[in-house]
Amino acid sequence: MTIISVEHALAGKLPVGGEVTVRGWVRTRRDSKAGLSFVNVSDGSCFAPIQVVAPASLDNYESEVKHLTAGCSVIATGELVQSQGKGQGFEIQARAIEVVGWVDDPETYPIQPKPHSLEFLREVAHLRPRTNLFGAVTRIRHCLAQAVHRFFHENGYYWISTPIVTTSDAEGAGQMFRVSTLDLANLPRDKAGNVDFSRDFFGKEAFLTVSGQLNVEGYCLALSKVYTFGPTFRAENSHTTRHLAEFWMVEPEIAFADLMENARVAEQFLKYLFRAVLDERGDDMGFIAERVQKDAVTRLEAFVNAPFERIDYTDAVGLLQKSGHKFEFPVEWGLDLQTEHERWLTEQHVGRPVVVTNYPEHIKAFYMRLNDDGKTVAAMDVLAPGIGEIIGGAQREERLDVLDARMAQFGLDGEHYGWYRDFRRYGSVPHAGFGLGFERLVVYVCGLANIRDAIPYPRAPGQAEF
Amino acid sequence: MTIISVEHALAGKLPVGGEVTVRGWVRTRRDSKAGLSFVNVSDGSCFAPIQVVAPASLDNYESEVKHLTAGCSVIATGELVQSQGKGQGFEIQARAIEVVGWVDDPETYPIQPKPHSLEFLREVAHLRPRTNLFGAVTRIRHCLAQAVHRFFHENGYYWISTPIVTTSDAEGAGQMFRVSTLDLANLPRDKAGNVDFSRDFFGKEAFLTVSGQLNVEGYCLALSKVYTFGPTFRAENSHTTRHLAEFWMVEPEIAFADLMENARVAEQFLKYLFRAVLDERGDDMGFIAERVQKDAVTRLEAFVNAPFERIDYTDAVGLLQKSGHKFEFPVEWGLDLQTEHERWLTEQHVGRPVVVTNYPEHIKAFYMRLNDDGKTVAAMDVLAPGIGEIIGGAQREERLDVLDARMAQFGLDGEHYGWYRDFRRYGSVPHAGFGLGFERLVVYVCGLANIRDAIPYPRAPGQAEF
Repeated sequence: MTIISVEHALAGKLPVGGEVTVRGWVRTRRDSKAGLSFVNVSDGSCFAPIQVVAPASLDNYESEVKHLTAGCSVIATGELVQSQGKGQGFEIQARAIEVVGWVDDPETYPIQPKPHSLEFLREVAHLRPRTNLFGAVTRIRHCLAQAVHRFFHENGYYWISTPIVTTSDAEGAGQMFRVSTLDLANLPRDKAGNVDFSRDFFGKEAFLTVSGQLNVEGYCLALSKVYTFGPTFRAENSHTTRHLAEFWMVEPEIAFADLMENARVAEQFLKYLFRAVLDERGDDMGFIAERVQKDAVTRLEAFVNAPFERIDYTDAVGLLQKSGHKFEFPVEWGLDLQTEHERWLTEQHVGRPVVVTNYPEHIKAFYMRLNDDGKTVAAMDVLAPGIGEIIGGAQREERLDVLDARMAQFGLDGEHYGWYRDFRRYGSVPHAGFGLGFERLVVYVCGLANIRDAIPYPRAPGQAEF
Repeated sequence: MTIISVEHALAGKLPVGGEVTVRGWVRTRRDSKAGLSFVNVSDGSCFAPIQVVAPASLDNYESEVKHLTAGCSVIATGELVQSQGKGQGFEIQARAIEVVGWVDDPETYPIQPKPHSLEFLREVAHLRPRTNLFGAVTRIRHCLAQAVHRFFHENGYYWISTPIVTTSDAEGAGQMFRVSTLDLANLPRDKAGNVDFSRDFFGKEAFLTVSGQLNVEGYCLALSKVYTFGPTFRAENSHTTRHLAEFWMVEPEIAFADLMENARVAEQFLKYLFRAVLDERGDDMGFIAERVQKDAVTRLEAFVNAPFERIDYTDAVGLLQKSGHKFEFPVEWGLDLQTEHERWLTEQHVGRPVVVTNYPEHIKAFYMRLNDDGKTVAAMDVLAPGIGEIIGGAQREERLDVLDARMAQFGLDGEHYGWYRDFRRYGSVPHAGFGLGFERLVVYVCGLANIRDAIPYPRAPGQAEF
């Protein structure tokens, strides 16, 4: 007996007529009047289940096979044959079907073979990978993650795992989660009555990181090309469909690179990722295009084939002001672009992805390089049709005196960032990098409306059971 | 001008005599009596720096080149030629050396071209990637991480990012870090005066995960073969050289697998990782063997070529008792094996890696499958010469009634684990998995004595500046 995955069984590379065994979970069972049953079995290795044809002659046909319901686990052994029906090419003529696990009370089993609302599935997030949609999202997410690592590896970047628990705040703002082992029922106090964090695990206040960028810069200034790919956290108590408290971020950092090189890498990177999805997950993307987002495949193909446009922020503001389009939020030099503005630029004006560069310095972070005009910084946002901003990045301020002035301007304590200043004191070089929110990417590729559907176990206010 | 990495320049695949540009940081400068200087430049792309020969005819020879010190950043352009000296094959005859960044006060620059103690380097962790050792460790760590993802991808596993913030405790024990947004200066209280966690971000007490296993099981029971690779946390306030508060863990989970299949995958996996290091990081491993751990390469080669031994825990206890060896800790059926016992088994007794199986049920976790003897569980530890335990795993208890009894025995609240029980209520199957502490692996491969040298930014009591 040869145990194979459903993917392998359906791939058409095995000799027809050989005996094989597949193992998985029942999706549907249909009994024919001719006295046999068709059992669709999925093992998650690919989008499609395989059809197992169960003849009435099976020992357990009446006692077990005819009681199979969605979710039961089975081991099916039989002959691999070309399917008579249209659609898939192969099926198994079963010689034996072993039932491994039944479903308690099939009537109340949450994952019935019918459409479920995404809201409902979020309430049973631990079972939703058994659905067509979340199986597809999981495999596409995996494909994207592999492509992230592969792209950087092939291009000479080294992966760095920056600290998750940190005492720095990379943005100089942003709500952070506190990490502590202090006993809340019995907090240690200093003489002034304040909480004494010197008694906490790390000897000072500690938080979950919002970005690995400041840390990864140190590795960039030694290994030249590096990247992070790890979880980051924002304690924004928003119930929007665009924010997660816990999400994964990709952050490359490139030595001796300016903003244009940064934009070039971002373009090459995104195209590589989407190419991988198109090449490797055609089955899942076909389902997404059929059921979730009609142009899911064609828009990725267009993305891969389009040269990105470059527009200066100042020019973008001019274009938006002259557009004649009525926007909800004001358009004025010095204000940040809103999603509606970004989408107009990339969808209406250019019709392709756009890199907007050189934003006003006061709306961007302290570490971004000040341009010679003194008014803008070498920041960039990559905007894509259908989603708006998908990547944000910048050339970093490599001049210590300018960095110090910027930190003072932002009210940051240079002492606290002594290690970060060291990167400018010792062999400083121009360098640049960008950040990609990984779930934003999954949302875009899978055409999802709610970012909580892009992470395996969503964790948001009101859903904390895991 | 062709900009290339030092790795590329030294690889011997470029036409000799062509003009190239390399960019990086000065390691050493030596001035010859003949009136030229030899500047070793590293860009971290590989272990070796490249020698740049700077003639006195350079415009900035006296004004700049002769003032270069370790850590300065430069862009060197010139002819790539075969090196006259022994050792490396190629060097650059410089036509221009641009100094990009100087070193503030070279006398006090922490990374001097001389050996530093590891203790000292831990105090300047943000600069230590510029040393030979931490450059090598970083590239080897990257190589291992890539191999982890590649192994699972090639074998049909899907990557799952399990929650970092959690309200479960996978071990039923273990010190955890609390994650909270409550204002410590003004904690909300319920009527009884206790802290009111319903007002906290997730509406209940939340912690940093100690393992993704329980969560990843849900994906295993839908996609058959899955794995996690992400950070985990233990708030053990130990200053030992073997524990990190924050470390990365690899946790595959395999449906329809028993303990023997689990052990087979673990063996195949470790050998794949070490093969990758031997194939891809010969330069860094050569340095490790020369300076850190004499047998670093030969022991990996032996590991890759040795079939793992299997020993039942009960037999292992008998062997240890009959060994005649004087152990510090007692050897008795029912007690856990200590590192000294593990190392005797793998190093003295077998001389190869060993998988010890079927441990007493009361020393292992509640989710491990109870064997028919009622006294042991289907747990395994993989022990390796030179380190002891490197992988721990188990077949999971797939029978709901047995799981419930085990949870009661361990004092765990079944209600709290309702979602985990669901995996046994709906299409349960035998499944198994294991956990590999990623920094333990790096420690082993790089021959490190202190696990804080295996993570990019160590975070331990007393070192929390990042």
